[in-house]
Amino acid sequence: MKLYFNPASPYVRKVMITAIETGLDGRIQQIPTAVTPVKPNPDVAKDNPLMKVPTLVTDDGFALYDSRVICEYLDSQHAGTPLIPRSGPDRWRARRWEAMADGITDAGLLCRYETIVRPEDKRSEEWTRGQMTKVIQGLDMAEHDSALLTGPINLGQIALACSIGWLEFRDVAGDIRKTRPKLASWYERFSSRPSMQATKPFQM
Amino acid sequence: MKLYFNPASPYVRKVMITAIETGLDGRIQQIPTAVTPVKPNPDVAKDNPLMKVPTLVTDDGFALYDSRVICEYLDSQHAGTPLIPRSGPDRWRARRWEAMADGITDAGLLCRYETIVRPEDKRSEEWTRGQMTKVIQGLDMAEHDSALLTGPINLGQIALACSIGWLEFRDVAGDIRKTRPKLASWYERFSSRPSMQATKPFQM
Repeated sequence: MKLYFNPASPYVRKVMITAIETGLDGRIQQIPTAVTPVKPNPDVAKDNPLMKVPTLVTDDGFALYDSRVICEYLDSQHAGTPLIPRSGPDRWRARRWEAMADGITDAGLLCRYETIVRPEDKRSEEWTRGQMTKVIQGLDMAEHDSALLTGPINLGQIALACSIGWLEFRDVAGDIRKTRPKLASWYERFSSRPSMQATKPFQM
Repeated sequence: MKLYFNPASPYVRKVMITAIETGLDGRIQQIPTAVTPVKPNPDVAKDNPLMKVPTLVTDDGFALYDSRVICEYLDSQHAGTPLIPRSGPDRWRARRWEAMADGITDAGLLCRYETIVRPEDKRSEEWTRGQMTKVIQGLDMAEHDSALLTGPINLGQIALACSIGWLEFRDVAGDIRKTRPKLASWYERFSSRPSMQATKPFQM
């Protein structure tokens, strides 16, 4: 399998953690890729017209995106405990948390894009404030969800860890952990996993 | 089930079409809801800190989001032919197309937000051009995917129809159908479904 890869992307990290946790990382060849919303990348466009990372090309040459689809695909390709529970409330909890964490990351990305891809006079404080409210409220919800923070690893937790890791890496939302002690202690424990250690974000 | 609902939202429409196609629409109570990225909505925040529609509250009082999670949930609650094929290439094709269509819609929404939530002097042509490229390339891919346009209904098709319907409703990307005859003819046929007719977008 071939993965359009960038070590700074929270969604690429989600895929790589999923690959490591399911024992599939050895089958993935990483293609270093830089994308930005304001500059087309024709190489990625060949496999994904949205020109986003992660994009996975399977051994059959079929292109998969986005991170949710790729993670679900990887989770169907191994025999261990599924990272997306197969049914019941645990499934919907994991799915809901993946969507929440992705939503936090998306809002954080829009805050960051506001400063990095726009000249200063085109930035809107109102827009950034609106997106930041989503980030803050989402993280506050995680702080109060003990089922999330004590249950076994699932894709919702992986997505949340990638979101926190990226927000801190880019310093988007200030000190996340200070006012959220339960989330902070969960994140510290979760970060000690080899899959988290092997995928620490950096600027390529 | 309770659905935070807005008749202009392409993602709400995706959920409602899925509900109708699976025979579950009679169990959904619609809560008319207006959201915008620049103004918090405390009512929605109680169930979804991201303050987005669609948000579904199940009969057990569990809140689900976003549209992908809700549609997957609904598809698990009926006995008919699944809208997300259970396994194999058909599953990944449907999943991939759902992600592509959602990506087109997201890019289109960012183009629209650029004009409706920002004062004129804060708008970036470069940003809009970058997002519009994704819309155009995604639609062009659909035009050339005969498996998508001839196969039986699935969630990928539903998402694509919602994307096209919304782009036309908001006049975001000009005349989509003119240069894409195969997509246009598929969309015309698909639009005759009762689920499409019952969910035509309008401004609340």
